[in-house]
Amino acid sequence: MKTKFLLIPALLFTAFCIGQENVDTEAIKKIKNEGLNNSHVEEIAFNLIDKSGPRLTNSEGYERAADYAVKQLTEWGLVNAKKEAWGEFGRGWEMNKSYVAMTKPYYMPFIAVPKAWTESTDGAISGKVIFVDIEKEEDFAKYKGKLKGAIIAVKPRGQQNPTFEADALRLTEEELENLEKPSTNTRRFTPEQIAAFRARRALSRKLNTFLAEEGAALIINGTNGRHGTLFTSSPRGYIKDTPPGVSELEMAPEHVNLMTRLIENGVEVEIEAEVKTTFNEKDLQGYNVIAEIEGTDKKLKPELVMLGGHLDSWHGATGATDNAAGCIVMMEAVRILQATGLKPKRTIRIALWGGEEQGLHGSRNYVKNHFGDSETMKLKKDHEKVSAYYNIDNGTGRIRGIYLQGNEKVGPIFKKWFSHFDELIDNTTITIRNTGGTDHLGFDAIGIPGFQFIQDPIEYWSRTHHTNMDTYERLVIDDLKQMSVIIASFVYNTAQRDEKLPREPLKEVE
Amino acid sequence: MKTKFLLIPALLFTAFCIGQENVDTEAIKKIKNEGLNNSHVEEIAFNLIDKSGPRLTNSEGYERAADYAVKQLTEWGLVNAKKEAWGEFGRGWEMNKSYVAMTKPYYMPFIAVPKAWTESTDGAISGKVIFVDIEKEEDFAKYKGKLKGAIIAVKPRGQQNPTFEADALRLTEEELENLEKPSTNTRRFTPEQIAAFRARRALSRKLNTFLAEEGAALIINGTNGRHGTLFTSSPRGYIKDTPPGVSELEMAPEHVNLMTRLIENGVEVEIEAEVKTTFNEKDLQGYNVIAEIEGTDKKLKPELVMLGGHLDSWHGATGATDNAAGCIVMMEAVRILQATGLKPKRTIRIALWGGEEQGLHGSRNYVKNHFGDSETMKLKKDHEKVSAYYNIDNGTGRIRGIYLQGNEKVGPIFKKWFSHFDELIDNTTITIRNTGGTDHLGFDAIGIPGFQFIQDPIEYWSRTHHTNMDTYERLVIDDLKQMSVIIASFVYNTAQRDEKLPREPLKEVE
Repeated sequence: MKTKFLLIPALLFTAFCIGQENVDTEAIKKIKNEGLNNSHVEEIAFNLIDKSGPRLTNSEGYERAADYAVKQLTEWGLVNAKKEAWGEFGRGWEMNKSYVAMTKPYYMPFIAVPKAWTESTDGAISGKVIFVDIEKEEDFAKYKGKLKGAIIAVKPRGQQNPTFEADALRLTEEELENLEKPSTNTRRFTPEQIAAFRARRALSRKLNTFLAEEGAALIINGTNGRHGTLFTSSPRGYIKDTPPGVSELEMAPEHVNLMTRLIENGVEVEIEAEVKTTFNEKDLQGYNVIAEIEGTDKKLKPELVMLGGHLDSWHGATGATDNAAGCIVMMEAVRILQATGLKPKRTIRIALWGGEEQGLHGSRNYVKNHFGDSETMKLKKDHEKVSAYYNIDNGTGRIRGIYLQGNEKVGPIFKKWFSHFDELIDNTTITIRNTGGTDHLGFDAIGIPGFQFIQDPIEYWSRTHHTNMDTYERLVIDDLKQMSVIIASFVYNTAQRDEKLPREPLKEVE
Repeated sequence: MKTKFLLIPALLFTAFCIGQENVDTEAIKKIKNEGLNNSHVEEIAFNLIDKSGPRLTNSEGYERAADYAVKQLTEWGLVNAKKEAWGEFGRGWEMNKSYVAMTKPYYMPFIAVPKAWTESTDGAISGKVIFVDIEKEEDFAKYKGKLKGAIIAVKPRGQQNPTFEADALRLTEEELENLEKPSTNTRRFTPEQIAAFRARRALSRKLNTFLAEEGAALIINGTNGRHGTLFTSSPRGYIKDTPPGVSELEMAPEHVNLMTRLIENGVEVEIEAEVKTTFNEKDLQGYNVIAEIEGTDKKLKPELVMLGGHLDSWHGATGATDNAAGCIVMMEAVRILQATGLKPKRTIRIALWGGEEQGLHGSRNYVKNHFGDSETMKLKKDHEKVSAYYNIDNGTGRIRGIYLQGNEKVGPIFKKWFSHFDELIDNTTITIRNTGGTDHLGFDAIGIPGFQFIQDPIEYWSRTHHTNMDTYERLVIDDLKQMSVIIASFVYNTAQRDEKLPREPLKEVE
């Protein structure tokens, strides 16, 4: 158990700051005691996950979760708790029925989930399954006039061989050490890969339109995943006035593979299916949940420390790790602060975001509405007031460190703060690297220090992230407790600090 | 890569036999070449698994697989290929529809499979889910008259937390070394556990009868498994004249847990479901598939070398590893022998068994019909003729050695035979131990040398054995090839040997 810190040259110059960083050790002790011995994470988890259900943006489940959060945060004594609209998102969508099974050459129930915002089938349908060979737009021609009522299957792209690596992983010492080295971009995509991905997506949209025009009955997509786990996705059907398309299911790859092998070997395959969905256009606005613990220091009270995570999820399961986990931790962190009776100097504001899964919409628009526009770099008055934003969105795994997002001056500060958690973190790792893909990016884009933590992946990449199996069972309760006390402490330290956290220079707009 | 062998004292005395064991190295070379470079395992796998479908004993899928095997074995030049009745098994059963979803407090499609030989629901049903608290027969009274039309859920018994062990495993050197030590019986059940298991099963049957009398609509059982994998089972409904019971589903534990947590927290849960099944009583006989390669030595031709595995499977998937794998290997082994043009002295007989999953019925009754009754120890004429029976039924993993079933005299012989496969087996392990649970037991019970091999488990215990995810993807094709050449060689060596394999003394009947 030790705290590691990469002393790159630039950081050497700022290292002297560490000594100046005062941490209220009594407060940290109280936070630990409340978070570890009187935790509410299981109760919050039940309410967000099981009771609310899947929380697709603008769905009834999202509304249940948001209403619960507003009520619960208010009950804990937070102020100004509300659902705050951030602009137009689009249509709500509900899944009302999903059934699909093979009926020929023999009966077998199949595991599948409708794509989010997909249309209904024309009642219960049945018929022969075909695979189409469409790699580019020119291939449409050969199917013109031939697909009326067709049930079209699309092969999965991955492999489903036995896996000799565990589903659940913790970061190794070696992996953490690598994180401290400058990024080698191995997980980034090449421009060619990005172009290929965009071309596939564009083709997929055109294909759906083509198939709708041709009157196809259903598209069955083989997904990634294995053993009954499948990864869900969606077309962009949430956008108002999206033209109607063909109903689409995403299916366990084993079941699509079975149909593929049968058809390729000359065996006719028939299925029966029924997909029933409803759209809701009564309110196209998207909403975040916002609440505050008011600051108590007359001078510092207008300043803000923010913490958050996205409340929306995909629809195939109850989104336990993506990202109820982040919301559980953030709600528990403010509960801990309230329960300890600590009086933060600066105001603490929690934000549970909507529309993250469709492009970080809730957080980006919140930043734009309150702090500034990252495209024009026109900043608002409150831009100066935010000391930091802390985000959790990498599943249920405990915190192992933090990404500095290139802001080297905060490194020594965080090092000092982390030093109070040696018993809760192995090999604490502070990396200068950026991490992307979630809601701190909107803050970072306009120069407000926004941070995402390094977390153990557990089953995030193998089993839970965007899958039909992201359920309550996938939570590691001890890890949620650890995260909650660290977040509560970081937020409190940020609220009490003499200065706001150091910022990076603003980027210039061309 | 080395061959290990535990020289326990008794074996030292027989070790001199090794030198007398002649192996036809040219034949082994031909077998390896045919099995490794001209393999048909994928073709056989497709036919048994995908094309036949689930192969529950006396189902249409079992019949498709048996018919395919008879035809294919005949095409390869085997003689006397046939489906041979072994006695009364019971009713055939087909799954015609399986659908279940939660409809309140929100919609979610659930992953479930009807229990084998379960009845249909009364069409499409819907309603509130209840849990009953029945631990013993006396608990029935409190529900008397209260369960008309009820949908009853039963909690799973296992845990579904994240797993830090890989699904797929190979035996380690240490595990193989342990296998060579006398059994510590750690995987056996204690008499108390067996009694508890029997009591639970008896209660479960009485419960189903009670619930049927009360007019319950559906029972939903939480199973073992995780991430969409569930383990199937069955009541004893295949037996003719079984009284009708309540339709039963087995469901992914995550989905039953969700209902449990909701109900325990006061949230009402409703589901909709439809189970449609049909029974078939037109032929209650059970069948094995039998075929032969006729021996070519005038004197030894009446003697037999047998090889086999069970052809039947459970119904939730296509039974790829349990036990199409064993049948693929055995069929491929006889194909290899035919393709090489080798002329075995003794007759080789392949047997693909039915009814294994319900109690090794096919093999036990075959042994009784042909070789002798293990209860009375009344032996038939052919009892003397069988040199050995070789069985595969532990999934797709490659052979790592063999269980001697206490027959120490065969140890040195197998050691010599395995020495020709050093490049295909790491740490070849020959253990004096018994292994149980499958079709060699019937032979062993009347003193005919019957052997099951030590295999790498791969995903057998975690994902495939009796599950809804035992699909073609779970096969490791290279391992099937390795098994096929080893089995073909062992069978050929047994056929060519001057003497039959040494036998253990017959057990005495009290």
